[in-house]
Order: sequence, then C-alpha cells, then structure tokens
Amino acid sequence: MEKGKILLAVTAFHPQRWHQLLAAEREVVLEPSGANDPSITYAVVWKHKPNLLSGLPNLRAIFSVGAGVDHIFADPGLPDVPIVRVVADNLTQYMTEYVVWRVLDHHRHGMLYRAQQPKKIWHEPLQRPAGDISVGIMGLGHLGRAAASVLLSLGFAVNGWSRTDRPMKGVSTYSGESGLIPFLNATDILVVLLPLTPQTQGIVNYGLLKELRRRNGLGGAVLINAGRGRLQKDADILRALDDGTLKEASLDVFEVEPLPKTSPLWSHPKVFITPHAAATSDPAHLVPAMLRQMDAFERGEKLENLVDREAGY
Amino acid sequence: MEKGKILLAVTAFHPQRWHQLLAAEREVVLEPSGANDPSITYAVVWKHKPNLLSGLPNLRAIFSVGAGVDHIFADPGLPDVPIVRVVADNLTQYMTEYVVWRVLDHHRHGMLYRAQQPKKIWHEPLQRPAGDISVGIMGLGHLGRAAASVLLSLGFAVNGWSRTDRPMKGVSTYSGESGLIPFLNATDILVVLLPLTPQTQGIVNYGLLKELRRRNGLGGAVLINAGRGRLQKDADILRALDDGTLKEASLDVFEVEPLPKTSPLWSHPKVFITPHAAATSDPAHLVPAMLRQMDAFERGEKLENLVDREAGY
Repeated sequence: MEKGKILLAVTAFHPQRWHQLLAAEREVVLEPSGANDPSITYAVVWKHKPNLLSGLPNLRAIFSVGAGVDHIFADPGLPDVPIVRVVADNLTQYMTEYVVWRVLDHHRHGMLYRAQQPKKIWHEPLQRPAGDISVGIMGLGHLGRAAASVLLSLGFAVNGWSRTDRPMKGVSTYSGESGLIPFLNATDILVVLLPLTPQTQGIVNYGLLKELRRRNGLGGAVLINAGRGRLQKDADILRALDDGTLKEASLDVFEVEPLPKTSPLWSHPKVFITPHAAATSDPAHLVPAMLRQMDAFERGEKLENLVDREAGY
Repeated sequence: MEKGKILLAVTAFHPQRWHQLLAAEREVVLEPSGANDPSITYAVVWKHKPNLLSGLPNLRAIFSVGAGVDHIFADPGLPDVPIVRVVADNLTQYMTEYVVWRVLDHHRHGMLYRAQQPKKIWHEPLQRPAGDISVGIMGLGHLGRAAASVLLSLGFAVNGWSRTDRPMKGVSTYSGESGLIPFLNATDILVVLLPLTPQTQGIVNYGLLKELRRRNGLGGAVLINAGRGRLQKDADILRALDDGTLKEASLDVFEVEPLPKTSPLWSHPKVFITPHAAATSDPAHLVPAMLRQMDAFERGEKLENLVDREAGY
C-alpha cells in the first residue's frame, strides 16, 4: 500500500518544524491548500478551522497534536473517522515535572518566601511533612498516574478522582458523581488534569472549591490547573482566593488564552501564571510516534490511543 | 543498668519541645546547669557553648540535633566520646523535597515566569527535557542519594561527587580531588549537600563555579546550596551571578546566619533565599530515635550513625 498523504493544520503552533519532520517521510500539504484533495488520507491537527476536514473524500484518520482533543470536537463538520491522541513519554514527563514543581512550591511556602525576601525577613513558617498533605488529582489517565507516582515517592498522600474507577496502588481513588464530594473533602492540594468535555466544562467553580479540605494551620486549600482553561471559572477562582477558600493557585490554563491583559489574575499575589506551558508538544518526539502509527495502520494494524467519541476524550 | 541522665544544650533552637520529649523517658538537665554533674551520661547538643562538655566526668556519648556535626567540632574542649548523628526519615524527606523543588524551579524557568507575570507577558521560553539536564550532587551520603533517586525518576541525568567513591545505580559518580573538575564540567545544576569540614570550608568559590558546564541556550549554570553556609563564599556567588557564570542560585545557607540585612544577596534578582529551612530537625521525629539509641547502648549494643572524627563528619 502506498504511503498516505498528510494534511497539516496546526494553528497556534509554528507549523514549520512539524512540516519538516513529517515531510521527511510522507507527502504533506499545508492548509489552507488541499481542502478537497482526494489523495489525502491523514490530518494532523491542532485547532484546525471548522469544516476544514469535511471536504476530504478519503480521510482515514485524524491525529491530534497535544494530549487534549477538545479542539477537534469543536469542529461541527468533523468527519466520522478515527481520532488518535498522541501519547509520548516526553509529554508525560513535562506534565509530571510541572505538577511536582507546583505542588512542592505551594507545600514548601514558595510564595511566602518570595514575599519575605525583598523585606529581608529571615523567618521559617511551620513546615508540615508531606505525609500530612493530601494531593488530589482529578483525572487519573496517563498523565495523572505518572504525576501521582512521583508525588507518592516524595511521601505525599495522594487521592485520585476519575469518571470511572481507576484503581492505583498507594492512591485513594474515587469516581463518578457520587465520589466527587468525598474526594474534595479529603484533598488539600487539588491538581486538575481532566479532559475538556461537555460534562467537565466549568467543573472547577466556586462550589467545587468550597468542598476542598481547609485545615487549621494550612491556611486554605490550593488549586493547580494544568488541564484545560474551560474546565475552570476564572472569576470563581478569584472569589475563592479573596475569601480565603483558596490559599494559593497555580494556573497554566485559562478560559481565554492568551490570558487577556485585563484579567485580575495577572496581578493577584496568590496566583502563579504560566502561559499554557506545562507540557508543550515537542514535534521531535511526537512526529516519529505519528509516522509509526501511520505505517502500522497501512500494514493493517490497529490505531492506538484512539479517542472515545462518546466520552469526548 | 540505670537510665543515663541527659544534658540538653540546644542553642538557636527552642529547647522546650526537645526537653519535654526527652524528659518523658529520662532525667534531663538544661544547660547552663549540670556542667560538672557526674550523673550525666549523654549530651544532646546543637551549637553548644565551647568547653561546656569538658567538665562532665561520666559523659558517654554526644547526640547531634541536625544532620551536620560541624557545630560540635567547633568546640576546642570536645571530650573524646562517640558522637552520634541522628538519621531520621523525616529529615531526609524534607531535604529531598527542597532539592527537587529548587531543581524544578530553575529547570522550569520559575524566575523568568515570575518576572514576566507583573508585566502580563504571555511567553514560553524553550523548555529542555529533563534528560538534557545534568544535576550534579556534591555529597552522596544519605541525603544526596535520596534526592538523586527522585531526580532520576523525573528523568534528569544525575552526577554525584564525594570524597571517596560511592557508586549508585543510574548516577555518574566521581570522587576525590581528581574527580572534581570532570564532575563540574559535566554539571548544569549543582546541588551542594557536603558536610562542613576543614577540607570543604569555602569549597564553593568562584574557581569552582567557573568549572560548571555552560551550554548554549541554558544561559549559565545553577547553584543550589542546602549544605552549610561556610562551604560557600557569598561574595564569589555574587560575582559569578553578575558575570553570567551562574544563571541563578537557590541558597538555604550563608556564611553568616541569619543572613545580615546588608547582604546584597537579599535583593539579587537571580537569588532565591530560604532561612536555613531546607530540612529542619523535628523533635517529634528525632527524639524517639535518640531515646532508642540510648536504650540500646545501655543494653550493650553499639551506637549507630557514629561520626568519623578523622573525616570530621
């Protein structure tokens, strides 16, 4: 079987590097060209334009750049072909680094020390041992489990919540709607790694944050969102920070990105902002995995890491 | 055998909690009382006054509060009895947290993001994968090995240097004077966990920092000192930061502590300061370990974790 041609449509990324790596092995058409090209069999996409793919008569699979696939389902004219989520060790490692980094920064009073330093204050606050702190991870997929494993090795207590029960050794797992409140009630530091679906949109709201555990001496719960911006309500996070429900937050994602300059989150002293940089897709690691899948598919093998259209992720 | 009496001399710590926990099981005398008391058999000390212990006719062992023992050797009238360094999981865990936290903060551009945020800058710098970064740990004892193990699980390349060779799986180890330059030449982020001895005093000077690897795109090496302040030359660190030899530094310890308000380190934009708080001795964890050792010693067993007087640690 001949090597299928690829349509590359990665807006919000620089397409050059992706193009270069894919084109080393296959013919690649860069959008907006090729919108009706019958010789195109694959689309490699990130936030592609709506209806871009509906005119391709012989499209056989869509590959997502990045772990989330909500950007694909945003297309009302999405063809009914398999959608592949690319899993790369590289992406998992970056996300684990980000989660462990932010958990430790909150746990070890980074914000307090940085506020003290310009005032030349030599003061050590009470430092709890990690075993006294429960980190609760919402979303126990590939990324959540990898982060949980390093947090366990650091001695943290780890809780996990997911749509369907996903047991993991050493982790207290909760699932479904009935498990959500008990999970939050047992969590000091909340890490959000959920996929964005119609069910999870806006889930990180004031009501949810209010259910987090707030214990004496810890000064409020902590929120870390490295999932998707539209999982959260920016205004609710600000409210929770200002009334003491939350002590601090690390946000890598926002309802609107880039975060508008008018957002009060930028200047909030208890918020740490990164520009959707927790785990950036690196074409050098992802393209070989994509090309391997295309080759295997053309040999008659099954595509791996397929997205469940019903669940939306 | 009767339970030996304890002299408690912990300056720079609040002695109450230590006293309370030790006194629950043994008779305890708080310095300056008891300086010639023949019924005292143990001393539990932290920066005790010089010659305080020389008048005790029946002292059998000295227990150090904290992992370092340089404060004990600072006493010119130190009696020739065994010195016990208390090893506690708790202390090791805190140190591992600190090292991993600081390595990740430098690796993930924490200082850059915190400088961007007040300016509302949405910009992601090039993020190297952990495997491209070598963290070099000086001092591969109990604390160094525990930190190395978590850094390995995060995917970092790890180098280790120690006085005598201490092999560790997955770590490139170097030792002795001849191994120091090769170790530094292969290290991007230097973590100092050495004991303070006449040989190591002032070892972290400009000449040493100049040997660290400086690669294109990384913008200088990084220093993290969580060992002892007198291992380093504060002025040399400032010089190295200002001429680009060092990109950034995290310092938990200083030549003089508390760090004087006149020190330019306080206001240096590339320095992160904590008040000797990386791993604070927690009496709730250390006292039971001390009491267990005393009980065992009186049953005729050997003392564990003895300090080597020759090596000075």
